[in-house]
Amino acid sequence: MKVINFGVIGFGTVGSGVVKLFLDNQEEIGKRLGFKLRLKKIADKMMKSKEGVQVPVDMITSDAYEIINDPEIDIVVELVGGKTFAKQFILDALKNKKHVVTANKALLSECGAEIFTEASKANCYIGFEASVGGVIPVIRTIKESLAGDKIESIYGIMNGTCNYILTKMAEEKKDFDEVLLDAQKKGYAEADPTLDIDGIDAAHKLTILTSLAFGTNVSFNNIYYEGIRDITNLDIDFASDFDYTIKLLGIAKDNGKKIEAKVHPTLIPKDHPLSSVRLEYNAIFIKGMGCGSMLLYGKGAGMMPTASAVLGDIIDCARHIYTNSIGTISNRGYLEGFMQNKQIEFIDEIVSKFYLRLMVVDRPGVLASISGILGEKNISIESVVQKGRAENGEGVPLVIFTHETRERELKEALIKIGSADYCLAKPVVLRIEDNI
Amino acid sequence: MKVINFGVIGFGTVGSGVVKLFLDNQEEIGKRLGFKLRLKKIADKMMKSKEGVQVPVDMITSDAYEIINDPEIDIVVELVGGKTFAKQFILDALKNKKHVVTANKALLSECGAEIFTEASKANCYIGFEASVGGVIPVIRTIKESLAGDKIESIYGIMNGTCNYILTKMAEEKKDFDEVLLDAQKKGYAEADPTLDIDGIDAAHKLTILTSLAFGTNVSFNNIYYEGIRDITNLDIDFASDFDYTIKLLGIAKDNGKKIEAKVHPTLIPKDHPLSSVRLEYNAIFIKGMGCGSMLLYGKGAGMMPTASAVLGDIIDCARHIYTNSIGTISNRGYLEGFMQNKQIEFIDEIVSKFYLRLMVVDRPGVLASISGILGEKNISIESVVQKGRAENGEGVPLVIFTHETRERELKEALIKIGSADYCLAKPVVLRIEDNI
Repeated sequence: MKVINFGVIGFGTVGSGVVKLFLDNQEEIGKRLGFKLRLKKIADKMMKSKEGVQVPVDMITSDAYEIINDPEIDIVVELVGGKTFAKQFILDALKNKKHVVTANKALLSECGAEIFTEASKANCYIGFEASVGGVIPVIRTIKESLAGDKIESIYGIMNGTCNYILTKMAEEKKDFDEVLLDAQKKGYAEADPTLDIDGIDAAHKLTILTSLAFGTNVSFNNIYYEGIRDITNLDIDFASDFDYTIKLLGIAKDNGKKIEAKVHPTLIPKDHPLSSVRLEYNAIFIKGMGCGSMLLYGKGAGMMPTASAVLGDIIDCARHIYTNSIGTISNRGYLEGFMQNKQIEFIDEIVSKFYLRLMVVDRPGVLASISGILGEKNISIESVVQKGRAENGEGVPLVIFTHETRERELKEALIKIGSADYCLAKPVVLRIEDNI
Repeated sequence: MKVINFGVIGFGTVGSGVVKLFLDNQEEIGKRLGFKLRLKKIADKMMKSKEGVQVPVDMITSDAYEIINDPEIDIVVELVGGKTFAKQFILDALKNKKHVVTANKALLSECGAEIFTEASKANCYIGFEASVGGVIPVIRTIKESLAGDKIESIYGIMNGTCNYILTKMAEEKKDFDEVLLDAQKKGYAEADPTLDIDGIDAAHKLTILTSLAFGTNVSFNNIYYEGIRDITNLDIDFASDFDYTIKLLGIAKDNGKKIEAKVHPTLIPKDHPLSSVRLEYNAIFIKGMGCGSMLLYGKGAGMMPTASAVLGDIIDCARHIYTNSIGTISNRGYLEGFMQNKQIEFIDEIVSKFYLRLMVVDRPGVLASISGILGEKNISIESVVQKGRAENGEGVPLVIFTHETRERELKEALIKIGSADYCLAKPVVLRIEDNI
């Protein structure tokens, strides 16, 4: 019986999850394959004693190159993360004609074109299902299930930390800082939460999805992103009054001319399936010519869900090695030679509806002035609500929902409104997606 | 450039959808493949003039065997439905070593073992993603994404007609007959709705999923099913008072010894993602050792969504023909030789919680009698509510939520309760799934 060997570089949370899941299910996996899939080596600089997943000592090495240079090993599983060592490991593995499975979204979104080009030259497999949405099978769905379809747009809740924080803020009326602290205690947020709460992690994932969905190289640097630090309970409540939920969404659309790709807090209708995605769960909503609307939902992170996705890729790769058919499905769904370089629309050119919250002096004429300024820019108002009354020149919140407008015009209007004497604080601006 | 040809048998709703989607996206599909995929022939007994999707006359034939026997055609797409001609077409195509793509759930659930065995002997591909949940990529997810995982249970809203009816009943307080009539007018229900509303269609789909999820042959005849004809607004309202929604679910579980597989109306918690699946949408909820909880949601039927899934399979098949690697992923996820014949648990042996609605005379001692009878069978009550009061021996509804009990004991108790003089109507019994 033929044996296909894989090695795991990085024995942290996800790495030990992969090893555990594989060892637990080895027998059942055998019934699916008809050949022997074997975990040959695990590399990590540091090893813990006793706790966690136990493996035989002779399977362990501190040197990743014992895996990368092992002629018996067919599949290198990179789970160290980061963009320096990981990149070198992957490129060296490809040089050795080894197939690669990784969950490294930062690396793929920033150096994807280079890595996929090298893989294509070497005729090697890159499995990266776990890099977006954890266990959610979105990469495979785009590359395989929707291979005959035309994707029009993607809306994703792709960062569990942000979704956890926004859910807790909405449901428990706690403020951002309090919930963040709680999320850090529970392990849903890192000690340094920047990558998550500023939208960078979601933008990494969106870069990868946009590239697959529209068959184009996308540079992370062209993706607009904005995080959730400035979201307040006030805005969550006002949005709720108008039947909206606030979610951090990654949005990618083909607008016919260019690709729109951006990450920001977004008001979406309460009865939309994405609104009911709570806590640390992720979900990807896809709209397409044939498929209509579909949603894929699951755990976007964590030891075992991520491990499940990684192991799914290892098995897919092994199956294709066994039948000598690597390349049957191109790594990014399109042949590398056909990947385009479509333009990403500049954020200021994108048209959408907006939620504005102004803190204004409560006196006659203010609304007339604001709507006048908006009107000069051809921005029409869908609804406006002043919350409460104030005396002696104190501020009251004024909430405005606009009709569709180009972001550039709105920004210009807001500079003028923001500098008026009746405007007491920087206007809060959130984008609305009504027609998801 | 190599050409791979496919032919479509059945130019009805789904057939014309497949042809339309393929013709519209042909160019983009080419960029994904690197070889030419060509629609060579369409067979149907009857052709409509003008309306609908237009194709050249010389592509049309009334004889399915012009496709099945065409040496140039590699993939036969069976979209006639039913179990007689369709079965013959598929078996004859396999005899000719042609690969098959189908959406025929009735056929696969009733004759699956035979068809998959023939396909395995002929080393042919059977694509059947569209047979369960339309565009929802659940077959591929089980066979590929979760190939390293262990599925524990599946809960599916797999019949759009039933979900449409239950949604309208709940949201608009209309009764079953009225909503059914409306669904028929709108094309969401057939003139003869039996297959859908009696749970047969959902049971067909559950048969297929159970087989894939647990690597076992499953006979449709062993699947317990129950439809939604007897669901009343009263029960929907009572369920809602206790924070439950009523959905027609297909449920498959590995209980460690046997496989539980059944279709019935089910009370599920309102805050569960399946509860927010509205109208004609379908959704499949999967729980597994590694993956945790995941949900796949989309249109379970209709021209274009089903076409998208069929075309995805055609492309997957063509890709594997091109690299000479049919069989890389077994048709049912497991090697045919390893498919087991696990026992399906008899419905009476299955343990769950129950919702009971009794119509009883409003007099002292009735509840004591009922709880006594339940107690004799070791069935304990979680909560009980009498709705309203009645005089002169008239009936009032008494709603009981039980703790977990074996169905056999409950049925025995209900025979005794049902024959008591205070019991004025046949007890209504619905199963509860609390721990999805």
